[in-house]
Parts: sequence; C-alpha cells; structure tokens
Amino acid sequence: MNNYFEYIESNKNKFLEELIEFLKIPSISSDTSYNSDIIKCADWLVEHLQKIGLKNSKIIQTKGHPIVFSEWLEAGSDKPTVLIYGHYDVQPVDPLELWESHPFQPEIRNGKIFARGTADDKGQLFTHIKAIESYLRTNSQLPCNVKLLIEGEEEAGSSHLEEFILENQDLLKCDIALISDTEWFAEGMPTICYGLRGISFFEITMTGPNRDLHSGSFGGAVDNPANALCKLISKLKDEYGRITIPGFYDDVLELTGQERMEFKKLPFNIKHYKQDLGIKEVYGELGYSTLERVWARPSLDINGIISGYTGEGAKTVLPSKATAKISMRLVPNQKASDIAKKTEKYLRTLIPPTVKVEIKFLHGGNPVLVPINSREIKTAVNALQKAFNKDVVFMREGGSIPITEIFQNVLKAPPVLMGFGLPDDNVHSPNESFSLENFYGGIKSSAIFLDEISK
Amino acid sequence: MNNYFEYIESNKNKFLEELIEFLKIPSISSDTSYNSDIIKCADWLVEHLQKIGLKNSKIIQTKGHPIVFSEWLEAGSDKPTVLIYGHYDVQPVDPLELWESHPFQPEIRNGKIFARGTADDKGQLFTHIKAIESYLRTNSQLPCNVKLLIEGEEEAGSSHLEEFILENQDLLKCDIALISDTEWFAEGMPTICYGLRGISFFEITMTGPNRDLHSGSFGGAVDNPANALCKLISKLKDEYGRITIPGFYDDVLELTGQERMEFKKLPFNIKHYKQDLGIKEVYGELGYSTLERVWARPSLDINGIISGYTGEGAKTVLPSKATAKISMRLVPNQKASDIAKKTEKYLRTLIPPTVKVEIKFLHGGNPVLVPINSREIKTAVNALQKAFNKDVVFMREGGSIPITEIFQNVLKAPPVLMGFGLPDDNVHSPNESFSLENFYGGIKSSAIFLDEISK
Repeated sequence: MNNYFEYIESNKNKFLEELIEFLKIPSISSDTSYNSDIIKCADWLVEHLQKIGLKNSKIIQTKGHPIVFSEWLEAGSDKPTVLIYGHYDVQPVDPLELWESHPFQPEIRNGKIFARGTADDKGQLFTHIKAIESYLRTNSQLPCNVKLLIEGEEEAGSSHLEEFILENQDLLKCDIALISDTEWFAEGMPTICYGLRGISFFEITMTGPNRDLHSGSFGGAVDNPANALCKLISKLKDEYGRITIPGFYDDVLELTGQERMEFKKLPFNIKHYKQDLGIKEVYGELGYSTLERVWARPSLDINGIISGYTGEGAKTVLPSKATAKISMRLVPNQKASDIAKKTEKYLRTLIPPTVKVEIKFLHGGNPVLVPINSREIKTAVNALQKAFNKDVVFMREGGSIPITEIFQNVLKAPPVLMGFGLPDDNVHSPNESFSLENFYGGIKSSAIFLDEISK
Repeated sequence: MNNYFEYIESNKNKFLEELIEFLKIPSISSDTSYNSDIIKCADWLVEHLQKIGLKNSKIIQTKGHPIVFSEWLEAGSDKPTVLIYGHYDVQPVDPLELWESHPFQPEIRNGKIFARGTADDKGQLFTHIKAIESYLRTNSQLPCNVKLLIEGEEEAGSSHLEEFILENQDLLKCDIALISDTEWFAEGMPTICYGLRGISFFEITMTGPNRDLHSGSFGGAVDNPANALCKLISKLKDEYGRITIPGFYDDVLELTGQERMEFKKLPFNIKHYKQDLGIKEVYGELGYSTLERVWARPSLDINGIISGYTGEGAKTVLPSKATAKISMRLVPNQKASDIAKKTEKYLRTLIPPTVKVEIKFLHGGNPVLVPINSREIKTAVNALQKAFNKDVVFMREGGSIPITEIFQNVLKAPPVLMGFGLPDDNVHSPNESFSLENFYGGIKSSAIFLDEISK
C-alpha cells in the first residue's frame, strides 16, 4: 500500500518546481486584463493533467472563464467516484508594494512558499493532482474513480459554476465531493471543516425628496432618507445582539452540548484575538462564545452605506437618497430563499410613509453542515492522522463556499472539506503563503483518502 | 424728496447694463482657478463705487479673498450710520449643461435676468449701490452715514469675515446692518425676514477593528462600526421627531400665538410643497406645522454618511470605520457653543465599549431673531410698501446667515433683512435669475430706507 509514499518522498523537489510553474501564471479572474493568463493557466493545467496520466482532461467553455475537467473512470462501477473540486484562478495582488517578494515569482522562506494563489487555491488543489500522479506512477491505476472539476471564477463569485453543475449532473455524478480550500484551526492541528455559514445579501435604497435639498431650508420638515435608513437598520437587531426579523431563528439548528464542548477545547485565546483586531471588547449574540458566534450563529452586517456629502469638511445637504448593502450569514438549517422572503416582509413593515424604498437581493447561498460520523469523514480524519501523525480536530467556518451546498443538495455528494491552509497564510492579502509541510502532507492525505475510501 | 425716484426711473437701462457688466465677471470663490476673476471683480467694484461718488472705496486684503469696503460719513454724527452688507462672489455653475443661457453671459427673458449671481447676491447688492448713486446724483449728499462691507467669500463659508469684524469694530461701527440676501415668501409679497436658524455641524467617526475584515470570518463576533453608528444616530431623535439630547430644548423660544397666526395666514400650499419635492408625506416634530418646523424649530440631519464598500454589487466586508456628518439647525435662544457641549456629552453616553469614537465640531453659528417692532424694521416695511405698492409680510428662514448674528452681537447693530429674491430664482442651481421688477423696486426701497431712517 505504501509504495506511493516513497514516490512522494523522492519527488518533493519535482512537485515543488511544478507548483512554482503553476503559480507563475497570473490567473487573476476578476480583472479582464488578465484574461489571456486565465486561458494560459487552464491550458497549462490540462496539459499537466494529461502528462501525469489523466488522458481525459479538457477545457470546457462557460459564459465566463473556462472550467478544466478531467475524469478517470477505470476503477469500475463497484468503486466509489470522488469528485475533486478546486480553482485555478487567484485574487488580485494590490497593494503590490506590501509584498516582500513578487506575487508571481514564487519564493521559499522559512518552510513556506510565498506567491499569490499558494494556499488559495493552487497549492491546495495541487496536492490532489500530485496524489493522483503518485498513485498512478506506482500502481498504474487509481483505487477509485476520480473526476476533477477545476473552475477559473471562484475569486470572481463562481458566477457560472452553479448553472454548469445544474446542466451537467450526469457528467459530474459522484459519490463524494472532496474540497481543499479551507484552513486548519492552528499550525500543527490537522482540521476537518464540517460547517459553513450561508449568506443572504441585499441592498436597500431609500429615497426622500426628489433632489438634494438645503438642510436649512427644509431640515425638520422633510424626512431625511439617511436618518430614516439608520433608524431602520437599528431595528434589525435587539439589545441582546439578536436579529429581529420575525421567524429568522425558526430553522436555526442549536449547537449540541458535544459541539460546544469540542469548541471549548480548541486553543482559542480571546486576549490575542482582541489584540490582533485592536478592539477593547468583542460583541455578539448574548449567550454564545466568539467561536460559537462565528461558526454556528447567524449574523447581520452592514457591508457598506452611503448618502449625501462624504468629502472633506461640511456641506449642509439634506440628501435625496441613502443606500446600504447588508448581508446576513446563515447557519444550518436556514434557507437563503426563506430568509430573503422573511427579511423583505419585515423591512416593508419598517418603512415610514415619508420615503420610498427599493430592496434588491443580490445573492444568497445556503449553509452547509456535514455529519461527522459518516464513513467519508472518518476516512478523511484517518488520512490526515496518518499523513501528519497528529490528532485531527473539527471546526466550522464563518464564511461561505456556496458551491459546497450545491454538491450536497444537487449532486447528492457528501462534501469533505479537507483543507491544508493555515490561519496566517495571508489569503486574499499581500504575502500569501502555503506551508511546504502541509503541501507534502496534503499530497499524502489525498492519496491515503483515495486509497482507503475505495476499500 | 422724491427726486431720486425720477433718477431711478430714467436710468433703468443704464443700471441694468452696469449690472450685466458686474455679472459677467465669473467671481466663483470656492474654486481657486477663478482667483484672478475674484480680484478683477473686487477691483471693478471699487472703481464703480468711486465713479458713483463714494471716494473712500478700497480693497482690504484678508487671508482669503479681499473685502471691498467703502464709507461716506459726511452726514454728521447726529445722523445714523447704516452698514450695508453684501457679497460679490458667486456659487460654482455645475452642471453647466442644464443652463439655458451661459451663466456669465447674462440674458433677459420674461422680465428676469438670468446669470450666476443675479439674485445671490450681485443683483441684490447692486440695489443699494444704485440707490446711493441715485441719492447722491439728485441731492449731492446722502441723508445718513453709509458703510459698505462687501465680502468675496460668502459662498466659501465666509471663512475670514468674523475675524475681520472682530478686529475692525471701530471701522465697522454702525447703528443698523442692512442686508439683502434673502427672499420673499412669494412673488408680489414684499417680505422682511426677522429670524434665521443657527447651526451646529459635527462629524463623528467610529472605528471598530483596526482593518476591514471578512464578514464571514468575523461577522457576529466583532462589532460593526457602521451598524453601531446607525444605532447611535437612531437614538438622536425620538418617535415624536424631537431631538433627544438632554437639555437641547432648554433655551428654545416658543413661537408666540401671534406668530403662529401670522404664519398660518401665509399662502403656503402643502399639496404643492409635497408635489414639488416628490414626497408622499412631510415629517417633523409633532405639534408643529411645516413652516413652524422650518422657521422656528430645531432640526437634526445627516448631511453625509459613509462606510465600507459602496461600489456596484456585493462585497462581504465588515468595515473598520464609519463616518457621518450631522448638522443641527438651532433656533432662538439656543447657543451653538452650548449645544455643541450638550451634544458631545450625550454622544459619549451612547458609545458602546466595542468601538472607538472621534467627534469633531466643524462649525457653529447662532440663530438670529430681530424684534419686529423696532424703528428700523418699521422703516424697512414702510420702504418696501412705498417702493412696491404692496402689503409687506414677515417671515423667518430655516437657513443660517451666521454673519447676521455677528452684526447683532459684536457690532450691536440691529440687522434688517430686507431681501428682494423670489423662491423660484434658482439660487445655487442652474438658471439663477433675478426679477427686474424686484431689482428696480429694490433700488427704490433702499433709497427710501436711507432717507426715512435719517429723519
């Protein structure tokens, strides 16, 4: 069984050189001036996958950036099919001057590789590609069927992926969705993520008078949409930090006593947390700890608000319009569509007759909760333990990976969130990095997972 | 006595041509690229004043744009001294494409002259200059002592005028301050303005975490300064539209029954008001009419608010900072300094321990109330009646002319707000205009006022 281990050990340098090649392509998806690099990166990936033995690797065009798809189905129908999801696109690099080395000229320092896309997600994705290579080179076949779905738009909102999945359910049919785009709770603590929050994002615009007015000539007699919007927003949460939308908590799954206990065991230091953020006090729903609030309780945040004059100094305008962008993070078993309906209904009751209101729901995504006693999660835990020789912890994440829920509910494939990132990888920031120990351990974990899930 | 009337009647065309010359100089004070036009305009004015017989006319430099000052003191110490205040600077003209004729190429249409600065304030100021000319030409002297204080920074906040007055109280010593920079309640209704609101303008910045955070990873556990700011703002007014700052109403002078009755008599049409503003309902302090709210009750308005991401679409940021600009309009006998103190004290009680706050008071100005039974107001009423052959009404204005209060309290000169503008003059907007009937009537009113105040 362990012959692929030897292959991995003896090819570390080769794997790293190949990853560096992959990282050098500036595949920034949200900036159209990098479109040719996106194509170059997808082409490089297809060629690379073919080279390691995945002959059925190809580009699939979408209305946006292309998807790289690959499949190896020779294990037979009695073996499971694992769909590996990742993305080859990366975040923009601004501000460039804060990078210690060039974002697209990867550099090794202190056991980490620094470049844009190292942890998010080229380095993590590459663990699976190298695991497949190692297995194929040493066993001339894979232990199970494998499909690779590698998108080029994750950092630009995965705009076309859901549609692609809905239209290609046969092509993507699988038993398990394996995703490596999350991080560990801390260095040296291999982690399985078993919960993600969902999201409901809306924009609300209030219009008062049909033009900006002089606040002297009209102030006190005509409602000010900025004041009215603040008032409305202040009614969305109560004094206990709870969201006041009627029915909002109806479907919220409470944490089990076991989960709360497990969270408490994690080495979370509230003093360091506050110091790092520069805040005197944390804030949130009464009765829950910080980790519980972020991982398992819903939230409501203004992401942006604007009205009137916002330049230097004073201007006595009574603004015509005020707009706020507001997002709610949802938790199991809330549904984004249900929450959007309840939110709009409640908002309508808060609108005074003195203003007009437009409410736009920009996007929504359902939360994800993965049963941790399933065979596939146990297999992932075992793979991490063997690869890293460390105990594995479970955590949830406060963020959303909406595609996970699509795998779960459309493809009916239980998702396995086996990530290899670390909290200080500077994902989406300057000096993004990926631990080489986690890179090599990730390759081993993936190979063991494919091996053992097939037994 | 009425020989100056004839001079005015027979020189209407000449007066208009001179006003056109004055209006052609684009003396925009808030845009430094017009600085040479400001100088040109001040020079033109001094030369013009000397030409009409005011030999002691001169430029006085300030730290900003120059003041034009003139005095004629030959009436002797037993005659009153009238200080006439006006400004030669004008507002910017954007958006230029909405002007039907060029803002600095004056055009006569339908009995009005259209150009930037016609009503605000070159045309109104010019009524006094032409009244003085008419009187001097026909009587070879003036009936009283006259001083002219004409500033070039009114549209840029009169930044250096208060300091100039404080430092030149002897130079500016006078018995009455005559100001024509207000408007009539309606066309055909000569109006004396006897009250102005004051102002207290502050900016409040809340800081939560020391950097923008991901709303998924931190939302619900770290206070959001935008939400916190909305909550604070929502606590500044109660459900009856009253400002909740403790002691805020302590010095508010209630309207008299007589005043409320006079306001009710004015032809104010609430239906047209709402239609013009495009609002379904007016809004304000319970128990007061719209005119009462604007003219005699304090108000509190957000003039601007900004936080987080305000571009297109969605961005899931938990912002580090949120800022609002907030102004309060004050009424007699509130004091801006007292209100600033009370406001800051109250704001401090509303700040949660989860955010840091900076409060900056940007400026303040006291309200003005002029006793309407004084000799100078009666003289102004009489002058307007004679000049226009119409009944005179009294009104207040919701806006602030902070310099009025300085005349009243520093120079101890009762202000007479005898304006000639009309509500549809489009002051500060494209297609600013000034009624020619009001221009010529204004010249007569000013001449009669100077004449009768001297008796």
